Amino acid sequence: MNITYNEAVKVLNAAIEKAKSLEIPVSLAVVDSGGHLVAFARLDSVYGVIDFAVKKARTAVMFGLDSDEMGAIVAAAELQGYGMLNSNDGLLTIAGGVVIKDTAGHIIGAIASSGGSAEQDKEIAIAGSVKLN
Amino acid sequence: MNITYNEAVKVLNAAIEKAKSLEIPVSLAVVDSGGHLVAFARLDSVYGVIDFAVKKARTAVMFGLDSDEMGAIVAAAELQGYGMLNSNDGLLTIAGGVVIKDTAGHIIGAIASSGGSAEQDKEIAIAGSVKLN
Amino acid sequence: MNITYNEAVKVLNAAIEKAKSLEIPVSLAVVDSGGHLVAFARLDSVYGVIDFAVKKARTAVMFGLDSDEMGAIVAAAELQGYGMLNSNDGLLTIAGGVVIKDTAGHIIGAIASSGGSAEQDKEIAIAGSVKLN
Amino acid sequence: MNITYNEAVKVLNAAIEKAKSLEIPVSLAVVDSGGHLVAFARLDSVYGVIDFAVKKARTAVMFGLDSDEMGAIVAAAELQGYGMLNSNDGLLTIAGGVVIKDTAGHIIGAIASSGGSAEQDKEIAIAGSVKLN
Repeated sequence: MNITYNEAVKVLNAAIEKAKSLEIPVSLAVVDSGGHLVAFARLDSVYGVIDFAVKKARTAVMFGLDSDEMGAIVAAAELQGYGMLNSNDGLLTIAGGVVIKDTAGHIIGAIASSGGSAEQDKEIAIAGSVKLN
Repeated sequence: MNITYNEAVKVLNAAIEKAKSLEIPVSLAVVDSGGHLVAFARLDSVYGVIDFAVKKARTAVMFGLDSDEMGAIVAAAELQGYGMLNSNDGLLTIAGGVVIKDTAGHIIGAIASSGGSAEQDKEIAIAGSVKLN
Repeated sequence: MNITYNEAVKVLNAAIEKAKSLEIPVSLAVVDSGGHLVAFARLDSVYGVIDFAVKKARTAVMFGLDSDEMGAIVAAAELQGYGMLNSNDGLLTIAGGVVIKDTAGHIIGAIASSGGSAEQDKEIAIAGSVKLN
Repeated sequence: MNITYNEAVKVLNAAIEKAKSLEIPVSLAVVDSGGHLVAFARLDSVYGVIDFAVKKARTAVMFGLDSDEMGAIVAAAELQGYGMLNSNDGLLTIAGGVVIKDTAGHIIGAIASSGGSAEQDKEIAIAGSVKLN
């Protein structure tokens, strides 16, 4: 199953609301289960974090893990982790990429935030993700 | 001047409304004056047209011309046109990429639609673009 | 919905059988609905056609059309078609990439053959595709 | 000498059997002596490990060493190891990439597994590799 546009908008809007309440200029990306963009919003962030948001979301969905969970695996691999980061056109394993599940628990996509601290990005992405979980 | 997120959302929503009225599953991309993504919506289109929408929007803003106007220039250049299309990580010069101007007439970004016919994509993108013109 | 490994093997084996009956050394790729590889077989073909098979399968699934149907659209766009071919890390619109549908008619992946003539590759890919249609 | 498709299938099937007995959803790649794909199976693993499997198999065959043996060399090179990992479009030196030899002891290809622990991936790849050794 893949996230639909209507579902992605619900997820995105919940994350936008959280980002605005925290007053942090972030970029937010929602991707489907194949890692392809469904919805995107740059809340007047610098443009360098656009790719951060997209890569975090793709990293989450391609391993079925939040980006920081994949980060722990990569870090434990030490030097080999560097090889992992180079794979798949580049992973980004900072906190802020969160998988999105349907009510049956299947992963249907991911949302990522970038532009805040790792903790803030994670909080914002989770605020979006839980809309459908 | 660059398009803001709030302006991009107005542009995007006007284009979404038009696409829905035409019942065409498109992807819609709004970029700033530097060609960087500000807002994006995939209205359940196939994922192959995501890149079409992004490339059309970038082609428009980087030359300050709607994508089909740039297409006429590229076509007139015949063999050289291939070289032009290969530049800038790949142009896409089909109709559907439209510049966005502020009230003073300065280009502040572009919007593109992909997934319909060239004429439909152009109509949808213009519906968005005129929101701020 | 995405094609499963068991389904992909059925599709692949039917295509292998056809390729062997035609005595043509091809490469065969099966991708899921996101364009990611599920199964692959190089029947002692030259290795240059590996990427042909993968790109044809991805082209089919990303536009929801057989690769030669997308080829007709691209060709009609004349010079602009060249810009399309450059998108999405490179399309390949020769015959031989065929979408795979589930019994409800939803596209769940694609299979492509490369190494024979366009007609042979198409015949081989269809022999695989129909296994689940 | 290069591994043939028939040999690759024997190797792949032995690895698949081991992976299924361990109940681990892995991706399995078999490459020839030039590092080019011969056979591939994604046993319903996440798609992020497809590239891991391909890169491990290529790393093994391009240095004539199992991927973890190359990992020991890379790690010993400390900072220079990063440069090595960046070479050849990216090495991956985690356990699980194993060279395949013919009966005369010549390397004719490699098989790699990804999706399990390093130890499991190595066990699965070896189960395939020994089919021809």
